[in-house]
This record gives sequence, C-alpha cells and structure tokens, in this order.
Amino acid sequence: MDRKDVGILAMDIYFPPTCVQQEALEAHDGASKGKYTIGLGQDCMAFCSEVEDVISMSLTVVNSLLKKYNVDPKLIGRLEVGSETVIDKSKSIKTWLMQIFEESGNTDIEGVDSSNACYGGTAALLNCVNWVESNSWDGRYGLVVCTDSAVYAEGPARPTGGAAAIAMLIGPNAPISFESKYRASHMAHVYDFYKPDLASEYPVVDGKLSQTCYLMALDSCYRQFCNKYEKIVGKQFSISDAEYFVFHSPYNKLVQKSFARLYYNDFMRNCSSIDDDAKEKLQPFSNLAGEESYQSRDLEKASQQVAKNLYDIKVQPSTLLPKQIGNMYTASLYAALASVLYNKHASMDGQRIVMFSYGSGLTSTMFSLKLNSGQHPFSLSNIASMLDVTDKLQSRHETLPEKFVETLKLMEHRYGAKDFETSKDTSLLPPGTFYLTRVDSMYRRFYDQKPVEETTSGKAKCCNGFANGH
Amino acid sequence: MDRKDVGILAMDIYFPPTCVQQEALEAHDGASKGKYTIGLGQDCMAFCSEVEDVISMSLTVVNSLLKKYNVDPKLIGRLEVGSETVIDKSKSIKTWLMQIFEESGNTDIEGVDSSNACYGGTAALLNCVNWVESNSWDGRYGLVVCTDSAVYAEGPARPTGGAAAIAMLIGPNAPISFESKYRASHMAHVYDFYKPDLASEYPVVDGKLSQTCYLMALDSCYRQFCNKYEKIVGKQFSISDAEYFVFHSPYNKLVQKSFARLYYNDFMRNCSSIDDDAKEKLQPFSNLAGEESYQSRDLEKASQQVAKNLYDIKVQPSTLLPKQIGNMYTASLYAALASVLYNKHASMDGQRIVMFSYGSGLTSTMFSLKLNSGQHPFSLSNIASMLDVTDKLQSRHETLPEKFVETLKLMEHRYGAKDFETSKDTSLLPPGTFYLTRVDSMYRRFYDQKPVEETTSGKAKCCNGFANGH
Repeated sequence: MDRKDVGILAMDIYFPPTCVQQEALEAHDGASKGKYTIGLGQDCMAFCSEVEDVISMSLTVVNSLLKKYNVDPKLIGRLEVGSETVIDKSKSIKTWLMQIFEESGNTDIEGVDSSNACYGGTAALLNCVNWVESNSWDGRYGLVVCTDSAVYAEGPARPTGGAAAIAMLIGPNAPISFESKYRASHMAHVYDFYKPDLASEYPVVDGKLSQTCYLMALDSCYRQFCNKYEKIVGKQFSISDAEYFVFHSPYNKLVQKSFARLYYNDFMRNCSSIDDDAKEKLQPFSNLAGEESYQSRDLEKASQQVAKNLYDIKVQPSTLLPKQIGNMYTASLYAALASVLYNKHASMDGQRIVMFSYGSGLTSTMFSLKLNSGQHPFSLSNIASMLDVTDKLQSRHETLPEKFVETLKLMEHRYGAKDFETSKDTSLLPPGTFYLTRVDSMYRRFYDQKPVEETTSGKAKCCNGFANGH
Repeated sequence: MDRKDVGILAMDIYFPPTCVQQEALEAHDGASKGKYTIGLGQDCMAFCSEVEDVISMSLTVVNSLLKKYNVDPKLIGRLEVGSETVIDKSKSIKTWLMQIFEESGNTDIEGVDSSNACYGGTAALLNCVNWVESNSWDGRYGLVVCTDSAVYAEGPARPTGGAAAIAMLIGPNAPISFESKYRASHMAHVYDFYKPDLASEYPVVDGKLSQTCYLMALDSCYRQFCNKYEKIVGKQFSISDAEYFVFHSPYNKLVQKSFARLYYNDFMRNCSSIDDDAKEKLQPFSNLAGEESYQSRDLEKASQQVAKNLYDIKVQPSTLLPKQIGNMYTASLYAALASVLYNKHASMDGQRIVMFSYGSGLTSTMFSLKLNSGQHPFSLSNIASMLDVTDKLQSRHETLPEKFVETLKLMEHRYGAKDFETSKDTSLLPPGTFYLTRVDSMYRRFYDQKPVEETTSGKAKCCNGFANGH
C-alpha cells in the first residue's frame, strides 16, 4: 500500500455562533481600554451556550466533514480525539462519536482520547499519522478531532476563553504532509495551568509562569528542531526556511512574542538571514542569561520590532480564527493552520509550515508540514473552500457581555450535574448542528441534530437525534 | 533502522503492599459465603493507602524498570500513559513522570495520556508500537505505563476493586512482538460504566449491562479477528491456533465466561477443533438469537463445562495476578500477560497469545502476540525473573476489612482536596517506592521516594523527592 506524503487530506471547523466582542467585554469588566484588544491582541470570543458542549461540537464537525467530502463512514479505520474538557472521567468523547459510525455498521475503528491540556490534539494527530505509516494500517482513513470549550473564572483570564471543534482526515498522498524527521519535543513537569478542582470546569492558572514556560519550551523545541534539520539536510535552519510559522494561540499577543523569540534565537545562532539593522538592535541582549531573557521587556520590545515585517508575512495569515474565536485549547493550533490555508491556499504549493504545539503541564512539539496543491477533493483550494471561514464568521450572533456572564453562571451549575433539560433553543445554530437536549437522572446525555433543511412536508431531512447507548 | 518484531522488550509491575482478603471482605460485608471468592472468582484485592496514588505507583514502576534493565533514561524517545484514574483533568500523568527524565536532561519525549476506561493502556501500547514502525521513529525506546486505582462505592461492586501500575519497554527485536494484521476492534457508544460525577472517585456502574457489552464486544472482535486471519493466512482460525488467551479481567468469573464464549463461537463456526462431546452438549443452543445467547444461564454453564479443560491450559496461567490484586483497570490485561509470562516463560518460544482488551463506554480490541525466547536482558526468562511476582505477592500486608473501609472513607475526603499532609508512613512500602507527602494550598502534589537501602552513614542511597515544577 502506498504510504507517500502521509498527512492531512481534509479539514473542517465548527465554532459556536454565540460570541462576545472583546471591546464590549473590556468595557463591561471595567478594564482599561485596549487591555483585551491590544494587550491580549484578541478581537472576539466564541462560547458554548447551554445547548452546546464539546461532544455536540465534535458530532457536528465530524458529521460535516464526512458529508462535505463525501467520505463513507465505513472508510474510517481510526478515530482519535484530543480534548481537555472533561465531561466524563472514564468514557471517552470518541465513544460518543461512534454513534455516527455505528449507524453505518462500522465499529472496527481504533483510537481513544488523548489528553494533556492544549496538546491532546497534536498527540492524536501524530498518533494517527504514525498509524498510517505502521504495519497495522489497513488502508482506511484516520480521523482526528480536536474539541474544547475554554472557560475561566471571573478575573483576568476570563477574556482568554474560546470554543471550537476541528476535524482532520488523515491518509497518504496528502496536500499537507509531515516532515517527521525534524520533529522535536519538550516535555516537563510544571504547574503552570491545571485542573485539580474536579468539581469545577475552571482551571487553576498562573498566567505569568505559563507564558515563561511556553517561551522556554519554544526555545527548547526550536533548538532541537534546528539540530535535527541540520543533521539531515546539512545546512543551518533559520526562519527563512519556512514560509509560515503557526503557533498554539492562547491569545494573539503570545504569538507575536513567540515569533519574535524565534527571531532572537536566529540572531543568537548567527543566522545569515538576520540583517545588520536587526543585529544592531538585538546586540544589547546578546549576553542575557536564559532566565533573564524571558523577563526582559526591552528584549521583547526590540525583537518584536525587528521581527515585525516577517511576522506580517509569515505569521499574521494564521491569526484570523484564533483572534476571532479565542483560545480553543486543542483546536487552537489547527484553527490557526486552517486560517493560513484559507488565506493563502492558492500560493502554497511546495511551501513549508512550521507548527508549534504547546500544552501546559507541560508538553510541546515543533514539527513541520510540506504543502502541495493536492488532488480534488483533497486539494488545498477545496479545503479552503470547505472551511468556509468568512461565512461562518459573518453569520455569528454577537452576544452582550451580560448575557455571556449569565451563560457562564448557568454552566457552573450544569457542570457535572444530572437530571436537567436544556432550552432546546436552536434558533442561533446553523442547520445540521448537534445540540444537547437533556441529561437524565443517570447522567446520560442526549443530543439531537438541527434539521439540515426542511422538506416541503415540513419533515426534517436529516438523521434523527441519537438514542442512548444500548 | 531495523524494525523487525516490534513489541514488548521488558516489563515491570508494581502493586500496593496493602491488600484485603476477599474471604474476609465477604464476612465483613455480610455477603453469602463464596460470593466474592467463587461468584466473582477473586482471591484478594490490593488498594492504595493514603500515601499512594496512580502518580506515585507509576513513578515507582518506571523508575524500577529503568533500573532493573539498566536503561539510560536518555534512550527513551516516547512515553505514554494509559489511565482512567483522574487526579487532574488537564495535566497528564506523563508530565509527572517527566521528572525522572528531566533529571538526566532528556525532555525530547513524545506521548501523553490515553483515556477510555480500562482500554487506555492498550491504546498507549498500540500507539507506541506504531511509532516504532513509523517514519518518525528516531531509534530510541518507547515506554508504556498503565496505572490505575479501582475503587467503588459501598455495595456489590466494591469487591471488584484493585490497584497497580505496569511499565512496558517497546522496541524492535522484541521477545513479545505484535501480529498487527489480525487486530480487530469493536467500539460503540454505551453507558455501561462511566464517571460523570466529577467530584467523586467512584464510577456509575451497571454491572449486568457491562457484562453483556463485554461479551458482545468479544464476539464482534473475535469474528473480525478470525476473518482477517483467514484472509491473510488462508485457513480458519480457532482456539487451537493460539497457546494462550489473555482477557481484561474485571473479575475472574468474567474471564471464565469469556473463554467459554470463544469456545461457543468456534462451535457455531463449525471449527474442526470442537470435539463430538462438546458438539452434542452445545447443540441445544445452536439456534439461540444473539441477544438471547448472552442471557442464557444454561448456555453459560454448558459452554464453561466443555471449555474447562482448555481453560485450565490456555487461560488459567494468566489469572494469577488479576485474582490476587483485583481489577487494575488499564493495567489488568497486562498484569494477566505478566502472569502467563511469569508462569510459562520457559516453554513459550514460537507460541502465540491472543489478547482481548475491553474498556467500558465502549472500546475493545483483540490482537495477537508472537513469542520468542529473546536475547538477554530482553528475554522471556529475564522478564519473568524481573517481574518477581511470587516475592511481591508474598511480602504483602493483609489488612482487615475494617481498615480497608476506613481508608476508602479517608480517600473520599482527600479526592480532589488541597492543603493536606499525608502520614508519610512508609513502613509497609518496599524500598524504592514513591509516596505522596502532601498537597499544598494550590493543589500541587509532592512525592518522595523511600530509600532503596541505608548506607553506613544512615543516609539514603537514592534520588531525593521531586520538587515542584519550575
């Protein structure tokens, strides 16, 4: 069986239509003007209303991808989910998704849920690619789902929420394939962000520590990535060797800092791509010790300034969805990838994307993707068209901050609860969206699907809501 | 790089020294005599005292495996954990284990936690094998850890608890290698056992449903396994084609039923290996519909009776640890594998083991392993000797049921709690065991290691307790 160019064949994204503008949230929270929009670099934040959750979003996006690309559910041989939003501590989200495949008689589908903060989606993706390259591949497609709802307690972290689900179809001869040999990871034991309060949906966060850990992990991964590249290719790697850099994006400001940090790394490594002006501006920081360099505001400012032009070219095209939706945890990096594909698909043939995945706790990997135009339906242009980003963003419903806060209050009571019905209000949901209808006295969750279209008789033209498992 | 015979090179198991006899528990619970020992088929049950948990057990077993097999921590390129015991909903157990590797400067280790009930360890194992067979393998070892503490609320499920951690070293040229092409899975959406009450460590259990789901999944996997085998090998597969059958073991009685069920499958498939006496005894059940066949006590009895001799040969050697320790969730199947290796290592060269992994919710896979004597230190005889099962079992400390119940009560309060110290009582723990010392006001957990041996100066000869992450 052919195993060339294993990677991403197709993608789809779903995010809740309910969102709140960061500018409005700033005013509502009494924060200084620009604190969320410039300080964090965020425009808008999506959130799940009481009829949506990580299970409904992943049902929606998997169903949508299979339909849009006309993939027979029987052709899926592996299905893996990355998530850090725990609804059940034992039963995986993957088992809820099996409903889609059981309907078509396909239950022989490997894979479960992978979990470590925002990194679980990357783990699932790498696992799925490995499967296709392994002896146990049976010739069918892999399917990777990243699904998360990021919510925070009232306070400074609250505007860094978000929600989305992404599905990626995996197989050989992909337009987005993996250059696996340069992959580098940095994994360590840290308490920068974690969820030890099991009864609460909210994490324990140390924002400042988390940022330093992120940048330290970035440095470590980049150093090793460059080493591996140089060993294999025989020449130095620098920022100029990739057209795009895509970062896990808890908030856009950290992405700006991250790219500047890579630029600073290239400067310290004496890369020929660093011009004289930049060298001069960064020279004062060439003797900073590692730890100091993470705390220096002056370095941060100087490196962002000299990296600004390259940021606009190599990073900015990936920031569309993360800035508009917010932090999607496991889906965040892949929403950024979707953004650059959506924006630049026409000119990407032969280009390279370097990806940086980070999950607190901590786990991180830098890896690179090689692009080719692909063959319809698995082509970059078709992926961009199916992602349909502009339409999805434009048809959202802006919610007032008061309503957003009220929803989060309700969800605090609903988290881990049983024996309740939702409003079943689907008025804001796009056709075909799955939604939660009720949780029974045994905590069993029931979902239904909003009709895709009405037939003349008024009867829904879609599969019915899923019943409870046997 | 050589990729022949990818599989398990080495194994170690750790289980708490604290245990309660099922016979004593029967009496204490006022259950009828034999309810736990014959009805469930269990002898004894291990449990974590207040100084142990899934993190400490996995630290212990990883440290122990690396030391016993003299594996440099730098040679580990992937580390994956399977568990369904949630201590943190975001931070993976893998990140705690990174402490062992950070000490030696190795942070480039892929992998996170895999989760779906008792199946997570199998997912981690298959992922790790795939990695070694993929393009991204860098020539280093994989390491798979299964760690769980199974505890139940007071009631009929309580005697089906247990606790253990298993570590397995993965690489090519293994004495225990995977025949990946016959692998078959059955995955579905069911609420047979789940953990939706996030604040409680205890699951919601439907024991009867879970048993039926297990047997249905077993049938489905076996049917597909046989189909795949026959397609590739060109002849029918039956029980006679494998020397051992190893099952996930929530309690031994279900393992007895499972093997009988495979026997019944072979009868229904007209396998030539079924003798005339068995045919005659099973004939009355040849027209049972699927659903009926799961409920028929007469079939259960008849099939167990005709399968009894083969059970003693092909299954019984794997039941030692599961009967002595209880359900170890993700570690259960691999404790059963360890048992058969321990009991039969001298005669296993060239033999085949069929494994059945089940996790509620549900996910299940049947796969087969091929054995060869191997090369020291990665030989079957060395694995058996390093497992040291008899010594570990004999040096346990039998606890009275009252003390067991008291411990579980304490742990109910400790679950998800912060700001407490443990007794730090290590008197029952073997040398080198990690244990929990305290959880601080930020929920950060601190562990220490019991000295491996005392030096003449009285100073511990082992690494010190791990500090908090940066």
